[in-house]
Amino acid sequence: MVRVGTAFAPSNIALCKYWGKRDTNLNLPVNSSLSISLGNKGAVTKVSVNNIDQVILNNNLISEQNNFYKKIVSFLNLLRDQNVLTNKKMFFKIDTYSNLPIAAGLASSASGFAALVKALDQLFNWDLSLKQLSILARLGSGSASRSLWNGFVKWHAGIKEDGTDSFAEPIDLVWPELCVGLLVVDNQEKYISSREAMQISVKTSPLYYAWQQLATKDLNTLETSIKIKNFSLFGATAEANALAMHAIMLSSRPAIIYSNSNTISNIKKIWKLRHHDNINLYFTQDAGPNLKLLFLYKDFAIVKEAFPELELIRPFAVEVEKR
Amino acid sequence: MVRVGTAFAPSNIALCKYWGKRDTNLNLPVNSSLSISLGNKGAVTKVSVNNIDQVILNNNLISEQNNFYKKIVSFLNLLRDQNVLTNKKMFFKIDTYSNLPIAAGLASSASGFAALVKALDQLFNWDLSLKQLSILARLGSGSASRSLWNGFVKWHAGIKEDGTDSFAEPIDLVWPELCVGLLVVDNQEKYISSREAMQISVKTSPLYYAWQQLATKDLNTLETSIKIKNFSLFGATAEANALAMHAIMLSSRPAIIYSNSNTISNIKKIWKLRHHDNINLYFTQDAGPNLKLLFLYKDFAIVKEAFPELELIRPFAVEVEKR
Repeated sequence: MVRVGTAFAPSNIALCKYWGKRDTNLNLPVNSSLSISLGNKGAVTKVSVNNIDQVILNNNLISEQNNFYKKIVSFLNLLRDQNVLTNKKMFFKIDTYSNLPIAAGLASSASGFAALVKALDQLFNWDLSLKQLSILARLGSGSASRSLWNGFVKWHAGIKEDGTDSFAEPIDLVWPELCVGLLVVDNQEKYISSREAMQISVKTSPLYYAWQQLATKDLNTLETSIKIKNFSLFGATAEANALAMHAIMLSSRPAIIYSNSNTISNIKKIWKLRHHDNINLYFTQDAGPNLKLLFLYKDFAIVKEAFPELELIRPFAVEVEKR
Repeated sequence: MVRVGTAFAPSNIALCKYWGKRDTNLNLPVNSSLSISLGNKGAVTKVSVNNIDQVILNNNLISEQNNFYKKIVSFLNLLRDQNVLTNKKMFFKIDTYSNLPIAAGLASSASGFAALVKALDQLFNWDLSLKQLSILARLGSGSASRSLWNGFVKWHAGIKEDGTDSFAEPIDLVWPELCVGLLVVDNQEKYISSREAMQISVKTSPLYYAWQQLATKDLNTLETSIKIKNFSLFGATAEANALAMHAIMLSSRPAIIYSNSNTISNIKKIWKLRHHDNINLYFTQDAGPNLKLLFLYKDFAIVKEAFPELELIRPFAVEVEKR
């Protein structure tokens, strides 16, 4: 009988973004970041020993040319090279299923790698701590380090060269009213990977050196806003941090613009609702054209009316149901 | 008989942008800037002594609530307060006519104020030098300091508190093949004045402190590119400088986005023409949604085919005709 490791990990959305690496091989970030996990939205990954490396995403066998395949195999190679695995010639079948729209740009690396390391842990009975799994997931994809927990999660940049102090941990605060609305404005593949884009920013943006300090300040403000449940401060800081990241990209040479015309018109629509109609609505945007709206559940009806195509996610819904 | 002063001044487009003041009353900039004047495109201004201040723009009497009116009258007040005028209670009729589309956002302050100071010089027989007129025009609108000359013009930021070293001067180099294409994507009035927007940037953008150094470097690169007639270097630097200015705005808190959805789709179209079709086409963008395309005359036909609504301006056409 083939042994299988199976695990689920949630997707996460950074509220204070990760942008730029101090070590590209170990995925060590320049700055600490803070995210919200998306509850039961994420990826289930099954892993089993196989005669070759095979990657299946949402029931489709992924070609060797695909970026997702390459990322997973280079992660497996890292494990094989570092003798993490018992047998250096061991290969795997990795079967990932995401319950988020692929097009949202959320079904990708973070939850997939976090679920993969949990599944490997199960398969090999490593019995690693979540902190250790966070470090391992980070090697696959930086933001995956944050997908080991639900709720708010903080990824410490760390300072060590070997990356042993660069892991995430949960923030022990809940905010049941908090809503994330996925707004898919374009379902095409991004024209440049975030991995590549952040390298261009680090190397060429004359504004990049301001990023680390800015992110540190935003992260502190976000933590405070969560503690005191100040949603305006929370939303404004998350939105400003995302736009600062996009500003860094815009000032890169060549410039990187993930927004398309729909992104811009939706941003202006959000601003109009906030400034003219006094709706407490903010957004964040990752390395892609789609937007993630931030609001409280009491405003859901009005937000949904303005954006009928919105997919509602309640990160703390599980906790809410438990109460 | 009523004496009248009449003068023309060209509009100008900054290739290295002016963004941020070190003195808001005297319009003293944080950084030096470099522009290209638009030849015979600009404003003719007539000025005469009147019993009240009156401003006429393109044959329309401008209301006292209008920003253009306010800007001109506060400039006249400055002259009256500083005893520049012989009579402190002197009022004026100012009649400005622009031959550029108002909607292009180019018919505004720069050429208007430059033409006004030239007309006042004529009216009062001041016989000021162009350098002195540049300082005077700067008091009306910063970028007006650059509209006293044709061709490439450099505005020295200066370091003195009284602004006597903050004036523009021409760069003695011509580039007859150089074309500027006006692409009007929106003819609505800007939602925030550049005067206000740059103040917000200076005060709130965590990236602003990098701007001065960046602009200094870009200005030097632009001057070099003009000297050696390296159009790719010229276009890439102007475009990157404009995007860096917009990055500063995007990182301001609250963020400022002048682009609309048409701006973004046109930027992507320009990039596609450059990267996929190898057209040597670049753009610059000011505090508004419209784009100014930069290319050489040999590529005009292909650029016009891609952007049929483009208005062609040849800044050195007069010089070309003279040869």
